[in-house]
Amino acid sequence: MRGTVLYGARDIRFEDLPEPQIQKPTDAIIRMSATCVCGSDLWPFRGIQKVQQPMAMGHEYCGIVEEVGSAVKTIKPGQFVVGSFCISDNTCPNCQVGYQSGCQNLEFMSGAQAPYARVPFADGTLVAMPELPSSSLLPSLLASSDVLGTGWFAADAANVKPGSTAVVVGDGAVGLLGVLSAKQMGAERIIAMSRHETRQKLAKEFGATDIVIERGDEGVARIKELTKGVGVDSVLECVGTQESMMQAIQCTRPGGSIGYVGVPHGVQLDGQQLFFKLVRLHGGPAPVRRYLPHLIDLILNGKINPGKVFDLTLPLDQVAEGYRAMDERRAIKTLLQP
Amino acid sequence: MRGTVLYGARDIRFEDLPEPQIQKPTDAIIRMSATCVCGSDLWPFRGIQKVQQPMAMGHEYCGIVEEVGSAVKTIKPGQFVVGSFCISDNTCPNCQVGYQSGCQNLEFMSGAQAPYARVPFADGTLVAMPELPSSSLLPSLLASSDVLGTGWFAADAANVKPGSTAVVVGDGAVGLLGVLSAKQMGAERIIAMSRHETRQKLAKEFGATDIVIERGDEGVARIKELTKGVGVDSVLECVGTQESMMQAIQCTRPGGSIGYVGVPHGVQLDGQQLFFKLVRLHGGPAPVRRYLPHLIDLILNGKINPGKVFDLTLPLDQVAEGYRAMDERRAIKTLLQP
Repeated sequence: MRGTVLYGARDIRFEDLPEPQIQKPTDAIIRMSATCVCGSDLWPFRGIQKVQQPMAMGHEYCGIVEEVGSAVKTIKPGQFVVGSFCISDNTCPNCQVGYQSGCQNLEFMSGAQAPYARVPFADGTLVAMPELPSSSLLPSLLASSDVLGTGWFAADAANVKPGSTAVVVGDGAVGLLGVLSAKQMGAERIIAMSRHETRQKLAKEFGATDIVIERGDEGVARIKELTKGVGVDSVLECVGTQESMMQAIQCTRPGGSIGYVGVPHGVQLDGQQLFFKLVRLHGGPAPVRRYLPHLIDLILNGKINPGKVFDLTLPLDQVAEGYRAMDERRAIKTLLQP
Repeated sequence: MRGTVLYGARDIRFEDLPEPQIQKPTDAIIRMSATCVCGSDLWPFRGIQKVQQPMAMGHEYCGIVEEVGSAVKTIKPGQFVVGSFCISDNTCPNCQVGYQSGCQNLEFMSGAQAPYARVPFADGTLVAMPELPSSSLLPSLLASSDVLGTGWFAADAANVKPGSTAVVVGDGAVGLLGVLSAKQMGAERIIAMSRHETRQKLAKEFGATDIVIERGDEGVARIKELTKGVGVDSVLECVGTQESMMQAIQCTRPGGSIGYVGVPHGVQLDGQQLFFKLVRLHGGPAPVRRYLPHLIDLILNGKINPGKVFDLTLPLDQVAEGYRAMDERRAIKTLLQP
């Protein structure tokens, strides 16, 4: 088969690779129904995260189970499955408290930008659906694998509750689905920080009540103005830079919460500043596996349509163009069809 | 009157000062029944926090109201009051959500190591008691003003719940009362990190189930060993150094919480490390005013005896010796009698 490998900054190749095989009795092989490019794939693509050796790319996925290892009990060939980008056993003490992204056997999924992929700990990582979903639901189900689950975690970690005011920093796919998640959790006011018209439009469609185009100190001042000088209950930080994190901290009210899900790159937090701001901070790789059954349910019942973040669909062999379109912000998120 | 002024590192003086006067209609003047030296007073005393100009010291207090300004409504002369070290109006939006230490009119109390002190925003800061307490309760009531309220906030911010496992980093008075607080909140296992015998003893009396004498990486390894490699649900960080904060982060389980109340000095947190540890972080100056009615109730009903942290009692004019005894760790905490 041919799959996607990143060799270095902007050197992404779709090339011949061996078909994945069962390596451990807890593995499954799945045939991809749809896959996509993640915002976090852009860190190494842009060279901000160094590529030490060729990387098999892709960690968002859904598809049909082809084969399972001898120890796999709940997942069966022929089933349609969605899985988390975090591979987890779903039985260790960390998984049992809902932190599958801190599993004692944690691995990160890779190699999903390909027609077939191996998923370790299939029972703990995959969620099977009772029947094959209609193809119109594929984009939304695919989104639940990472980008929706991550936006959901941002809102959950930011303690969004019915009646909350929330700010979403970052208008990438995760930020936009953070808006959707905050809306689902009952936020009364959702302020999306975005200066891109198409993204503002989608943010509003997902539930944003206000758009702030200013950034940095000006952005903070605008949020303060919108909240009578108080700041907001919840901030969803969906970028991962020093500037975005400072923006998040500055616009949170005392006792308010920041859920941060953008992988921090070069972010340093001053202990004394955090202390006197009295904010709550929680974030990390999203425990998507915890949320998956609920998210799939919302999608199958037509309550949410997160698949709208895919504004570019390409055949899998044009994966390189999919990366470029996102890198140049021509696309919010690229869906790839095997 | 004579009161306490810090002129520079280790230069603490008990000297003639004007008696405090009502300056604003919301002020009260109180006659101190008891006051004390705070662990945070040691930062400037030791020269770690620079003394820019002579500082009137003391922010923990309880006593009898002498006089109130014309706008004070609920506090009356003759009442016995306890107040928070944070001066708050208790009406602004931040106070209303329980973050009086983030009050829009926040001031920090000062000048309490003296026979009389002025308390701004008396209605919002002080809690009056129905009758004069017996003198045996004074140490505990005094403790609720800061050190107990701060330990309580550490446990609350660390999400201690019935059945939780907790670690307390720091065996100063705040850490010891963090142990007491975690016990009150129902923690099942409370691990106190301490290498001082008298403090270990008091920690056990307050509810510690385990004592860990190791520090740094060895301390973390010991905590991991005690928790089957998982780490704990809650860590109360009651020191404020880089080492103590790292210790706290390293021994928290994924999804667990750190309540930090030691004023951070030179603490820098790496965003990516926090991210992959999946911890919750919350701290700051404790909103003692929120907790005071409950804490006073526990004290009056004999449920808790936080006054035990005072292991040295001196007449107020020996305040300098009170500082030195704490600085040299000869005393846990010094109570001063006016």
